[in-house]
Amino acid sequence: MAEVTLTGGFWAKLQQTNAAATLAHCEEWMERLGWLANFDHAADGTTGPERPGWPFSDSEVYKLLEALAWEYGRTADPVHGAAVRRLTARIARAQDPDGYLNTAYGHPGRQPRYSDLEFGHELYCTGHLLQAAVARLRTYGEDELTAVARRAADHVCDVFGPSGRPDICGHPEIEAGLAELGRALGEPRYVEQARLFVERRGHGRLANVPFGIGGAAYFQDDEPVRTAGSWRGHVVRQLYLAAAAVDVAVETDDGELLAAVERQWAHTVARRTYLTGGMGSRHQGEAFGDDWELPADRAYCETCAGVASVMVSWRLYLATGDLKYADLIERTGYNLIAASPRSDGRAFFYANPLHQRAPGPAADDGAVSRRAEGGTRAAWFDVSCCPTNVARTLATWQTYLATVAGERELTLLQYADARIDATLGDGSPIALDVETAYPDDGTIAIRVRQAPPAPVTLRLRVPAWADGAWLEEGGGRRPAAPGAVVVERRLRVGEELRLHLPLSPRHTWPDPRIDALRGCVAVERGPLVLCAESVDLPPGLTLDAIAVDTASPPTDRSGGTLIRASATTDADHAWPYDNRPAPRDTPAQSTEVPLVPYHQWAERGPSAMRVWLPAAPR
Amino acid sequence: MAEVTLTGGFWAKLQQTNAAATLAHCEEWMERLGWLANFDHAADGTTGPERPGWPFSDSEVYKLLEALAWEYGRTADPVHGAAVRRLTARIARAQDPDGYLNTAYGHPGRQPRYSDLEFGHELYCTGHLLQAAVARLRTYGEDELTAVARRAADHVCDVFGPSGRPDICGHPEIEAGLAELGRALGEPRYVEQARLFVERRGHGRLANVPFGIGGAAYFQDDEPVRTAGSWRGHVVRQLYLAAAAVDVAVETDDGELLAAVERQWAHTVARRTYLTGGMGSRHQGEAFGDDWELPADRAYCETCAGVASVMVSWRLYLATGDLKYADLIERTGYNLIAASPRSDGRAFFYANPLHQRAPGPAADDGAVSRRAEGGTRAAWFDVSCCPTNVARTLATWQTYLATVAGERELTLLQYADARIDATLGDGSPIALDVETAYPDDGTIAIRVRQAPPAPVTLRLRVPAWADGAWLEEGGGRRPAAPGAVVVERRLRVGEELRLHLPLSPRHTWPDPRIDALRGCVAVERGPLVLCAESVDLPPGLTLDAIAVDTASPPTDRSGGTLIRASATTDADHAWPYDNRPAPRDTPAQSTEVPLVPYHQWAERGPSAMRVWLPAAPR
Repeated sequence: MAEVTLTGGFWAKLQQTNAAATLAHCEEWMERLGWLANFDHAADGTTGPERPGWPFSDSEVYKLLEALAWEYGRTADPVHGAAVRRLTARIARAQDPDGYLNTAYGHPGRQPRYSDLEFGHELYCTGHLLQAAVARLRTYGEDELTAVARRAADHVCDVFGPSGRPDICGHPEIEAGLAELGRALGEPRYVEQARLFVERRGHGRLANVPFGIGGAAYFQDDEPVRTAGSWRGHVVRQLYLAAAAVDVAVETDDGELLAAVERQWAHTVARRTYLTGGMGSRHQGEAFGDDWELPADRAYCETCAGVASVMVSWRLYLATGDLKYADLIERTGYNLIAASPRSDGRAFFYANPLHQRAPGPAADDGAVSRRAEGGTRAAWFDVSCCPTNVARTLATWQTYLATVAGERELTLLQYADARIDATLGDGSPIALDVETAYPDDGTIAIRVRQAPPAPVTLRLRVPAWADGAWLEEGGGRRPAAPGAVVVERRLRVGEELRLHLPLSPRHTWPDPRIDALRGCVAVERGPLVLCAESVDLPPGLTLDAIAVDTASPPTDRSGGTLIRASATTDADHAWPYDNRPAPRDTPAQSTEVPLVPYHQWAERGPSAMRVWLPAAPR
Repeated sequence: MAEVTLTGGFWAKLQQTNAAATLAHCEEWMERLGWLANFDHAADGTTGPERPGWPFSDSEVYKLLEALAWEYGRTADPVHGAAVRRLTARIARAQDPDGYLNTAYGHPGRQPRYSDLEFGHELYCTGHLLQAAVARLRTYGEDELTAVARRAADHVCDVFGPSGRPDICGHPEIEAGLAELGRALGEPRYVEQARLFVERRGHGRLANVPFGIGGAAYFQDDEPVRTAGSWRGHVVRQLYLAAAAVDVAVETDDGELLAAVERQWAHTVARRTYLTGGMGSRHQGEAFGDDWELPADRAYCETCAGVASVMVSWRLYLATGDLKYADLIERTGYNLIAASPRSDGRAFFYANPLHQRAPGPAADDGAVSRRAEGGTRAAWFDVSCCPTNVARTLATWQTYLATVAGERELTLLQYADARIDATLGDGSPIALDVETAYPDDGTIAIRVRQAPPAPVTLRLRVPAWADGAWLEEGGGRRPAAPGAVVVERRLRVGEELRLHLPLSPRHTWPDPRIDALRGCVAVERGPLVLCAESVDLPPGLTLDAIAVDTASPPTDRSGGTLIRASATTDADHAWPYDNRPAPRDTPAQSTEVPLVPYHQWAERGPSAMRVWLPAAPR
């Protein structure tokens, strides 16, 4: 947290909006809807059967608290410090003497504690409470929140420990919370409890199996983490579980468990992941689809799944040093997480489809959205997991920029205007200033402000798409192949390295086995996935009736990217299947179609949108 | 019913299996699960809170009763006659003195009557009761079931009539039941009540709107039938409503209402219908998708939606005489309704996808299936609407074969071995014998057994796909263009007309706007959609890795149809998107792939399956 500061550019702007608008926005909505007052009612014994919000609404308060704690750590803004203390006090009052803390269960007029492990989300909520406490611990130190978290974690260990109930929660999250808190406090009991929960899963312990949405696989209780071949079922459940499994594997030095998650990541990225990094092909069950089932229009790609995917990839990178995980973090960051918040930070996408067939209705910023459908960002949701998840992720984005390893190795993973003041493994300080207009421009200047007298290893990630990158150093230049370019020498204070990533817009083609995308092409520019929006089309044209001329490469012009396309009329035929292969509508005109970054779509009002565009026959 | 008899072939076999196996199968399952005993408990006042089955399980009993009544009318088999009387007696006992009849509501320990109009399905159940009574009326005459239906219909008119509650049922069906019963009994009050229900819909009367699955559109309460542009929402709800709207339009001579349904049919068939005739692109909400949203893998295509589609098309044909409606009936019959029952009539498909990515688990014939997923036919379902819907449809399939109109016009709509003894509009009898091996063979012989002395108009439907059909009559032959071939003259007893429909297998290409099918080709043969099954592939090949050589036409050989395809290896790439357009896997081998009729798929055990196959680049 303290060693890297974003000083400008794409992510700094998102962080600032998050701090200035989103955090207060979330607190206001939860106050308005009574989700915060639920804690007061639990404390005062006035909960009753009409408690507002879903049973898991406590978790939104905890995720907001986590985001506030990280944000206070980043800027020390007293506004956020006060918010942390305000929320902590309300939460602490609601904790029962034995450490149990949940506003939906175990109160007069409510169901008893742990009476619905499948869908009650009690341990899930506790997991988020523990993660909030970790954020506070890592940015401030022990305070009242630590005490609340300790009591809650001890209570979980008492009830569900080796000699307690051998059960698990329908929605994984407690595992990650316990592992992180155990690590932060040096408390092996919590890590061990996380390990127990991870190992218990996959043996059909959960009853009340939701058959219509995938059965036991819905909550990953069909097969143990250690042996499963693929990620499946509810995406956020799966990815929170996988993140915790890496934590447990690392803490317990369990190479087999780590290898299992690595294998599942590889399978899922090869066969079940969208170009944006999004995961989740089905609205039904908010779930992974089968291999190669990646419809653009019905892509669910929940924002929270993007957050969870970053959590998993980050842990896998830290455990292995493999930069492919940082590649996916970059892709998911620019094209999923950054796509969710509206530019003012006060409305969000929940689902992130890659194709919107018809413009959705305009958002009503004063209303709770019940829909997770794409097309318009909503101020708040009935199930509002995404806004607070975005908030806690943006508040920590700088932490994904750089890592140190070994004696004297520093790796730059993500590129942004940043100030880095790090301590290498041997204790020597190193300071770098990064200056870049990335992702608009591909030049990344790295100026050495401080360096040890001994040689260092500086690794600069070269994204997989960056064919033709090169590094400029000491007056010379050399090619930088995808993977990493490595500088292994003594660095001189004041010297500048310049990494050049090629940012010409490029066509991207799908694997032929992805049926939903056959015959289509997308355009990417650097790390950004681009898309066409109907608001940019000439009058009379629709996104259903254009086909990309792939012989003409996409071009950058006056601040935007253009493609050339042919347009057909969009008329009906009585029956849409025909025994002749030729298109029945002849191209009527050739036109240029401007593209915008996917993360910006629907910023100008409701619009139809496509990432994947039909390629004209050549 | 009495004028057309199926004497052999495809549909006769399905009818026989339905009569010999399915009807008893349905009664046995409903007895086993207590859905029949629910009527006894309602009669005896012993229902209680633990009543088995969904609230709408009564409707399955009524649909079975309807099927039995039709079947008894067809064959006079005393087994079915006894079953009709047995079920009628149990149902009649459960009717309240005021005519209300429902085993789930209005009894001790149960919710009150009409307390959940959105999802309670009470009027839906009553609608099916009325349809069962109509079947009995039309094949037998008035009996106890008529009396029960009259009381039930009068009760509905009393409660929901012009001066009663201005409400509607969340699931349309009462409308069709009332209109049909009103027509059968000559009771205008019932038709008027049907009209009221149809007109009330679309004004947001239903509360408890299911936002996650389409909002008010889910139950077509978003826009009146009269003005809606497209069918949308829950498919079976929509199509039952549309069928009733045609009934009402015809009975009240409402041309505007009829035109609205015709317009919606055309829109839906052009943009929201599968090659099989199936409707419903989304598992979520069992719903229509947007225009052009027609994924093969996640196609829902509920069997009941196919039944309902035939109901609508049949009514539109009768109202307009337009043979395009009979085309869709034929397509839906062979490729959806016939696909549902297993060849032994004791297991059924609920959803009918056009692509099964991985073989499903084998069915357990002793278990209730909770899944409506494709891949294996199930003996019975938790929501078991499809088996009884198939049963009532098969029991009446002969009625779709022929119609008379005007003074002396007879139209043959569907081709099968059949005996037709009809009365023309002027009262003169006409008798035809149809002999054919259709759909295996394209020759349809029509022998005149009896004919009036005056000239008649004999219309023979020529399906839209039958380019190159021809008619042989009186020693000569003439082309028969798609639409109809018309014989307008005096028919001689003993003469034979022969219609020849070209049945060579043919490639079929999708509209370029159907994103999910771009670059794919299907094979049809006559009215049959064909598919490839993984059980027929050479070892080592998968359906994910073959591409059809479309330069080679599909060929008939030794009783089956073959296509030539190239096969690639099915290996993973780390990332499934690439900046080069060429397939990264080069074709490894050329192979022949046998195809089977879609309606036969999964008859040889679990299998992966595709209707739409990728076309190799040419």
